[in-house]
Amino acid sequence: MEIESAHQVTDSHENGRRAQRLRPGAEFDIIRRFQELWGPLAVDLGGDCAEVSLGKGLRLLTSTDVSVEGVHFRADWLTPREIAYRACVAALSDLAAVAAEPLGLMLALTLPERWRTHADDLANGVGDAVLDSGAPVLGGDLSMGRDLALAVTVYGESASPLRRSGARPGDLLYVTGRLGGPAAAVTAWLSGRTPALAHRHSFAAPRPRLREARWLRRSGATASVDISDGLAADARNLASASGVEIWLDLDAVPCMMGVTPLDAVASGEEYELLVAAPPDLDHVGFERRFGIPLTVVGRVDGWHEKGVVGARVDLPGGYDHYSG
Amino acid sequence: MEIESAHQVTDSHENGRRAQRLRPGAEFDIIRRFQELWGPLAVDLGGDCAEVSLGKGLRLLTSTDVSVEGVHFRADWLTPREIAYRACVAALSDLAAVAAEPLGLMLALTLPERWRTHADDLANGVGDAVLDSGAPVLGGDLSMGRDLALAVTVYGESASPLRRSGARPGDLLYVTGRLGGPAAAVTAWLSGRTPALAHRHSFAAPRPRLREARWLRRSGATASVDISDGLAADARNLASASGVEIWLDLDAVPCMMGVTPLDAVASGEEYELLVAAPPDLDHVGFERRFGIPLTVVGRVDGWHEKGVVGARVDLPGGYDHYSG
Repeated sequence: MEIESAHQVTDSHENGRRAQRLRPGAEFDIIRRFQELWGPLAVDLGGDCAEVSLGKGLRLLTSTDVSVEGVHFRADWLTPREIAYRACVAALSDLAAVAAEPLGLMLALTLPERWRTHADDLANGVGDAVLDSGAPVLGGDLSMGRDLALAVTVYGESASPLRRSGARPGDLLYVTGRLGGPAAAVTAWLSGRTPALAHRHSFAAPRPRLREARWLRRSGATASVDISDGLAADARNLASASGVEIWLDLDAVPCMMGVTPLDAVASGEEYELLVAAPPDLDHVGFERRFGIPLTVVGRVDGWHEKGVVGARVDLPGGYDHYSG
Repeated sequence: MEIESAHQVTDSHENGRRAQRLRPGAEFDIIRRFQELWGPLAVDLGGDCAEVSLGKGLRLLTSTDVSVEGVHFRADWLTPREIAYRACVAALSDLAAVAAEPLGLMLALTLPERWRTHADDLANGVGDAVLDSGAPVLGGDLSMGRDLALAVTVYGESASPLRRSGARPGDLLYVTGRLGGPAAAVTAWLSGRTPALAHRHSFAAPRPRLREARWLRRSGATASVDISDGLAADARNLASASGVEIWLDLDAVPCMMGVTPLDAVASGEEYELLVAAPPDLDHVGFERRFGIPLTVVGRVDGWHEKGVVGARVDLPGGYDHYSG
């Protein structure tokens, strides 16, 4: 069961609407409570995707992601087409995290009367995501309601999915792309400014790293997570699932122009991948193939029962550590 | 892509809120338009479930169903536990329609602040549906929003799913259970009365006919549909998918006490099955096994290009036909 990353970005900026939202902590509490109540009626709800063994060695990977108007996006930030595209990418990125081959997606659309004139644009945004990922629309459900909402369920398969739990001491940590653009765009909007074009683009038109992920799995990656909660938070998720100690090198984090490393690692709404892999990973080959950077941002230092992440942070007055 | 059945029940009764909703016709128009825009980016969106061939003869059946507060249910009609149970059944019933073996479900929950005190009840309602169907919770997504909404995605498998399209001349039409309770309950609520207990129960605690459907498939059923749009409407769907002419015998429709056959066949929100099968179907064996009636309500009279449904209706002043 996944936590909506949007809260992290918007909670810290948008006090006026905070009552509408749960903090990430409170959401985790609810999910933990659900898991407790369901007991054996639910499988383990951690992870980017749910896995279903289908027999004959086939494994279904699936994930659901909801985007709600006023919670995950604002109608004045994005075009309707971008809203729908982005809602699909949020779900497709979960398939990328496990390096699955996409099979398709389902769209449950809550379409208020005042959004009906934008129905074509929304459909075209879904089409953009389908065209890009090769995962056709399998079906869906259409409903009325007060706020626009898109619940996107994605389906993929893999004989050997990547998981968060495979990182081993000696692995390096690699991140795809350049970070911090989405949070910079949201910060600009929330303070009444127009975001830089590159920042806006990274928020409005993220690419799910589906092909990149399958390349990384074939090339020896041991663990993977998409950093939709931000690099720092998802490094903790990976450390905890793998039972390892991770050391991040903030100076190495690839940032978009105008973004500090600390802002970049806190930035949610990213759909880049953080993977663990042995040091001999052919990252030059990756960059040549996909045209985006693959950067070493840390290393796995050893086993650690609960999982921990450390980094040297340049604080006013000296250096310090933070860990999670 | 499925049409929400709730509109049919509530549209005809609840004029005050109609602006919030689309008529079924308008919803079909939007879905047809989406299919047009997506072209080859979408598979055929008809049918109770989407089918995905996984290779090695395995076939995934999946469906999504959204239940939105104020559209599909009202908080003063049902307990939170019933609301969640019912939302799951609406989706599970699509697996029953194709006689799939359930693999699990995903829950995308939009949980407003004012609903947080009911989170346990909602989880328990999901648990009730899981326990009953044997489909565990695989994962989900939790979000804030203004209105409670549950988007439930279900997963099943079958080597030879039942479809709407297999009915042949000579088949009889059978329906499970007794009809008309849900619409009678909604009518009572909307006119300020308390529904009869049996009617309320049929609305609040429907059973997805999962085991029944697999028995019917094994016993020779040729086509199947769940009658969530009402028996009359879904008989038309079956006739049109199979390309046959169906004759319904309204006098034979098994009605709940206090419900007329005409109201029973118009009643949406039903999760019973309508199946076509040869006349030698062992319906006595079915009733003995499952403890619910399986009733012959019509027959397939012949092939018909577009599909048509006829019935003799007792109108004031004489008999007449209707067809769709």
